[in-house]
Amino acid sequence: MEHSFIAWAKQRAARLPKVKLGIGDDCALIGFESINSAESDVVVTTDSLCDGTHFILSECGAQAAGRKLMAVNLSDLASMAAKPLAVFLSLCLPKENAGDIAAGVFEGVHELAAKYQVSIAGGDTNVWKGPLCIHLTAIGTVSSGTAWLRSGASAGDAIVVTGSLGGSILGKHLTFEPRLQLAEELSRMGVVSAATDISDGLGIDLLNMTVASKCGAEVLLDQIPISSDAEKCIKESGRSPLDHALGDGEDFELLLAVPQSQIDRLPLEICGVPLTRIGTFVNRTGLWSRDKRGVRQLPPRGYVHS
Amino acid sequence: MEHSFIAWAKQRAARLPKVKLGIGDDCALIGFESINSAESDVVVTTDSLCDGTHFILSECGAQAAGRKLMAVNLSDLASMAAKPLAVFLSLCLPKENAGDIAAGVFEGVHELAAKYQVSIAGGDTNVWKGPLCIHLTAIGTVSSGTAWLRSGASAGDAIVVTGSLGGSILGKHLTFEPRLQLAEELSRMGVVSAATDISDGLGIDLLNMTVASKCGAEVLLDQIPISSDAEKCIKESGRSPLDHALGDGEDFELLLAVPQSQIDRLPLEICGVPLTRIGTFVNRTGLWSRDKRGVRQLPPRGYVHS
Repeated sequence: MEHSFIAWAKQRAARLPKVKLGIGDDCALIGFESINSAESDVVVTTDSLCDGTHFILSECGAQAAGRKLMAVNLSDLASMAAKPLAVFLSLCLPKENAGDIAAGVFEGVHELAAKYQVSIAGGDTNVWKGPLCIHLTAIGTVSSGTAWLRSGASAGDAIVVTGSLGGSILGKHLTFEPRLQLAEELSRMGVVSAATDISDGLGIDLLNMTVASKCGAEVLLDQIPISSDAEKCIKESGRSPLDHALGDGEDFELLLAVPQSQIDRLPLEICGVPLTRIGTFVNRTGLWSRDKRGVRQLPPRGYVHS
Repeated sequence: MEHSFIAWAKQRAARLPKVKLGIGDDCALIGFESINSAESDVVVTTDSLCDGTHFILSECGAQAAGRKLMAVNLSDLASMAAKPLAVFLSLCLPKENAGDIAAGVFEGVHELAAKYQVSIAGGDTNVWKGPLCIHLTAIGTVSSGTAWLRSGASAGDAIVVTGSLGGSILGKHLTFEPRLQLAEELSRMGVVSAATDISDGLGIDLLNMTVASKCGAEVLLDQIPISSDAEKCIKESGRSPLDHALGDGEDFELLLAVPQSQIDRLPLEICGVPLTRIGTFVNRTGLWSRDKRGVRQLPPRGYVHS
């Protein structure tokens, strides 16, 4: 299958932006002129998605899986305020319908590559005895010194989230939009001191950010923007909507630290996506919640990787 | 498992060369100063290996699989005359013994990372219902304009291979040395016009090179360096040693085009690895063999991807 698929993919990717040397040789070449402007650093992220864990192939189809794979990686680039440049797709395909599945995954990747003008610059295909397992490495650029790190938050910075949280299992985990445009806008404004994307759940991801930044966080529980999908989950789960917003994984919204000096410059929304202040980074380590009953320790309820 | 594994892997990778920001954030950052010297291009390759296809986990163990994964990717960089800079490892682990397998794969990758002074700069781990499936993306650099492409061969150039060919299934496919040092030496000498690594088999890879270079190739069959492992395979396979050398995949030797004007400068060996001229690129397209019986068409017998 490999040679005909590579020829088809090369053709299909031909109208996307190109790197110096794309699909078809042993490696791709990204010309120094694509990277060098304004002394850019190269930003790299990689993620794998597995049938049965991150998507159910028989339910969502190959194209939705490919789109999610691309969106997950682009979300990581957005969370560093990086601009995507090229992606590399590697497929481990089940024997049955390998060709159709490969084409479907590629189309899903292509959809977002076309939208965000990213090169599909290389990859690898394999047919094997296992279920579908797909991998993507995304490469971007960021002006040196301007990448948003998890470690950049300071006590006093506001905690801000994009969009609304919880219940993404009902569909958003497949259809979410990586927050590239929003990140580009906020990066240009220079109002963000630290960031990550919410992939494991607000609680876990906020905890990771405080650990990296050597501080703590105090969350205003009644300010957390809860999605309507979180409300829909409660009947089956028996948990509260807030619990879903704090604990559900795969929101793929951005979690931002915004210095006090910049908070008044922060818009209420960008490109139609609301920005909500949900608390403050504090000196005391750990996660804390503040509501009408006072300040209490907040267990990080996010999804814990097995 | 993920958090403790990441902490361990970060510690284990600490004595390798570092990129600006390695394991632990949403993405890695490669500083422009690592890339920019002498106007370098960034070189990227990605490969996945699957249990049951590229290795048998129950026979070879996780560390050998990890070493192979790294070696396969470094071989691609060598075939472009690129210098490796950083790698990104993504693991899809079976539920049983996930932690031990992850550590084993990492150790195999680390072995060659330490030998060739490459950063292990990021990755991803997942536990799933399928067998072990492992992925690596390697990033290197090459001075702009000096990468060896498949498309650079011209009629009249000599066809040269490193090492000896065939029978790698007996063990070399797990233990081979990526030809990085040899490639660095030949690149410095400026004697190579095109290259690829022999992964699908000499016949197929040579054909791919002629197609990319819009020429043909005439092979002196009695000059092909046949490995002793190819000799050992014949009893079971019923094929000739030459057939194994032409058709077996996963030799991971380099296949080079050397212009006539440079052929006298080519050493007989580099770092103990022999360089053997096995024919000439010609104007007439296709693969041709020349032996005492004359010139005949040569079927490309290499492994064909399913």
